[in-house]
Amino acid sequence: MSGPLITPRTLQGFRDYPPALMMPRERLLETARRVYRSYGFAPIDTPALEYAEILCGKGGDETDKQMYRFLHGKHDVALRFDLTIPFARFAAMHVGELGTPFKRYAMGPVWRGERPQAGRYREFWQCDFDTIGTTSNAADIEVALVIHDLMTALEVGDFQIRVNNRLVLNGLLEEFGIAAHSTGVLRCLDKLGKVNADEVATEMVQKAGITSDQARQVLALASLEGSNADILNRLSQDFGTNAKAAEGIGKLRELLAATRTAGIREDAIRLDLSIARGLDYYTGTIYETFLLGSHPTADGEKPRASYGSVCSGGRYDNLAGLYTKQTLPGVGASLGLDRLLGILEASKVLPKVSTPAPVLIVQFLGERVGDYQRLARVLRAVGIGAEVYPDPVKIGKQLQYASDRGFRVAVVAGSAEFERGEWKVKNLASREEKAVPESGIVEAVRAALL
Amino acid sequence: MSGPLITPRTLQGFRDYPPALMMPRERLLETARRVYRSYGFAPIDTPALEYAEILCGKGGDETDKQMYRFLHGKHDVALRFDLTIPFARFAAMHVGELGTPFKRYAMGPVWRGERPQAGRYREFWQCDFDTIGTTSNAADIEVALVIHDLMTALEVGDFQIRVNNRLVLNGLLEEFGIAAHSTGVLRCLDKLGKVNADEVATEMVQKAGITSDQARQVLALASLEGSNADILNRLSQDFGTNAKAAEGIGKLRELLAATRTAGIREDAIRLDLSIARGLDYYTGTIYETFLLGSHPTADGEKPRASYGSVCSGGRYDNLAGLYTKQTLPGVGASLGLDRLLGILEASKVLPKVSTPAPVLIVQFLGERVGDYQRLARVLRAVGIGAEVYPDPVKIGKQLQYASDRGFRVAVVAGSAEFERGEWKVKNLASREEKAVPESGIVEAVRAALL
Repeated sequence: MSGPLITPRTLQGFRDYPPALMMPRERLLETARRVYRSYGFAPIDTPALEYAEILCGKGGDETDKQMYRFLHGKHDVALRFDLTIPFARFAAMHVGELGTPFKRYAMGPVWRGERPQAGRYREFWQCDFDTIGTTSNAADIEVALVIHDLMTALEVGDFQIRVNNRLVLNGLLEEFGIAAHSTGVLRCLDKLGKVNADEVATEMVQKAGITSDQARQVLALASLEGSNADILNRLSQDFGTNAKAAEGIGKLRELLAATRTAGIREDAIRLDLSIARGLDYYTGTIYETFLLGSHPTADGEKPRASYGSVCSGGRYDNLAGLYTKQTLPGVGASLGLDRLLGILEASKVLPKVSTPAPVLIVQFLGERVGDYQRLARVLRAVGIGAEVYPDPVKIGKQLQYASDRGFRVAVVAGSAEFERGEWKVKNLASREEKAVPESGIVEAVRAALL
Repeated sequence: MSGPLITPRTLQGFRDYPPALMMPRERLLETARRVYRSYGFAPIDTPALEYAEILCGKGGDETDKQMYRFLHGKHDVALRFDLTIPFARFAAMHVGELGTPFKRYAMGPVWRGERPQAGRYREFWQCDFDTIGTTSNAADIEVALVIHDLMTALEVGDFQIRVNNRLVLNGLLEEFGIAAHSTGVLRCLDKLGKVNADEVATEMVQKAGITSDQARQVLALASLEGSNADILNRLSQDFGTNAKAAEGIGKLRELLAATRTAGIREDAIRLDLSIARGLDYYTGTIYETFLLGSHPTADGEKPRASYGSVCSGGRYDNLAGLYTKQTLPGVGASLGLDRLLGILEASKVLPKVSTPAPVLIVQFLGERVGDYQRLARVLRAVGIGAEVYPDPVKIGKQLQYASDRGFRVAVVAGSAEFERGEWKVKNLASREEKAVPESGIVEAVRAALL
């Protein structure tokens, strides 16, 4: 090529995923897919690009500014900034045909032109699951179970799901005489854990317009500690006569009991009255999920202080009211895949492996490529990934390549081995080497991989 | 919500994927991922959005027009229109650190603002794999093996991989005295199969500037039929003295021999001198892959006539010359995932199933949700997907839901069963029903799923 080079670079706030980062990301995605499917959530996909009008809805202030929005021909279009609004549009178009209840998951990138920060990017993946078309608390119970099984399967260490119910919060605010300020109060409450209680109280007074006594009342309840039963009993005692609070308490009680019956340990799902979720559209159960102390920067006792929630959601009264007259209540949650990956990356717990195949077959004799590939196909056929080195260069160079990328076993054969019908199987960690006849190759490689 | 509704719709040329289409798509993706990994190709990902300058390169005429390009702040940005150019940019930035040879796969959506046609969309997925940093023919041989194992694993019926080599084509054009016209001639040749030989000949004369005798010579060779050995021998005999042709013939001979040694039947990989690939950057082996007669509109004898290639690629001398002085030769191919899915969709061979879980646990007693979920978790723990219906509605309605979505087994328990510690397992196809104690549930469900 001639002419000056173009400087290779990515846009600010965007990143490449090399193999050592992409392999754990694919593992997380595969795991989420498997867990969602195991509960009967079915995959859907919607376009990355939509009419801006669809994505803006009626609001448009803050959200609008974060959108990648542009004219394509005469169309005002934008990249999706979450998977919820496209799902609402999808549901309005297809739910008549698909029927309810409808359980779906969706995984894909979303784009927000926010100011980039450490660990926050302008393109990131979300993995959402929702059940729509039912108000049954059984669906809320299931969401807690899905989050539990998902976090367990992801193998990211200890976690805790914190649940609350907007009905309870709204009931309490009624009792405190500040129901009219609920949106503002809950938005402030949602910041607890990110900023301290005094700051939250000040903000409630300044922004939500309640008195400092009222703010103290709210925060005293929000910081209530004890077993799930303790908190439920205290709530019933103090607020059981409020209809909203009573309904919310009943649903939480049922959720906590059913998840115990289903086999979840009590400690994994905890009632936490400080969980508020900032979003207006939640109306019932709400969920957040926190990684516990096993990560370096985590503060064991106060998981919220270290990282935000990695899987959050809740119940809403109506998903798609912007697009259809049909009322679609539902409940679901979203795994922040790239946020979780960023935590694992920062915690330096990701393996330094950049090959998805554990076996390297050394290319010792160039004219034997067909045989090396034949052997590789024997291994692949039983599910063992095997790469054949592409050039017949010095074996030392090939083994260095294997070691740099985290291969675990090398298989070598030169003229002598071909004459004897043998292969040398080398464990790259222990450096043990063993010659085996071709009929024994699968067994020998499996043993070396143990 | 108040105010007028927003009409839910997608942009022209874009589509939603409901479960019945998304499940086969995920199966294809999972299969491609598994095959690529089994050969040691490692996943990478790059942003959907790049600087327009990066994506345009130097050209910019036709490609430029197809791009979704816009200003974001002061930056001229665009959505990627393939995965090759982002890979070139990625390689230029990271190959120093990652080292060579470097084998990667990438899967993701690309966007082209082309006029939408039946089965062609403006957003579609590609699944690319490449080995860069080596000129070894072993990598070319491997690409043919990967395509073979991929197409086999995808279970899309009979297929044939057609290979050729640009060195052979260029050698022949030299011998015919039309080497200076090669770009134009190969572009015309690439249309063979889509339009008939006479039209191609006319176009070669008109657009590529060769005589009609020369066009006939090229087309006579391109339509050469026979076994791989026949064609190779004929080529060696007639053109073996041309250095380029001889090199290309040698590489094809080696590729065809090694794939046979590796265990691939001769018929699966065929030498086809009419395979040209329109793209300028190919310099060696080229590959196309065609589905054979098992699809309704396919014409068994001439697979090219019915569908285009579903997996194509080739060898190139230098991947990233626009961005780096480092020469990166390589070879790879791309699976046109959504094109393949479109063929399966049009062929009506996709199963009408919209649940990823085969077992529906009926919610007979609302207060037993914890127990239904407990049983579901027993099944999920052994890898059997199980959904609990969210509402305790009439059992007939729940079984209708199961049947509409393709569930295969229903599990039911009411008060009597709970008293006896039993579950009723119902095969939804045969309508056979059997009561089993909880200890026998996995075995009974497995039997019903057989």
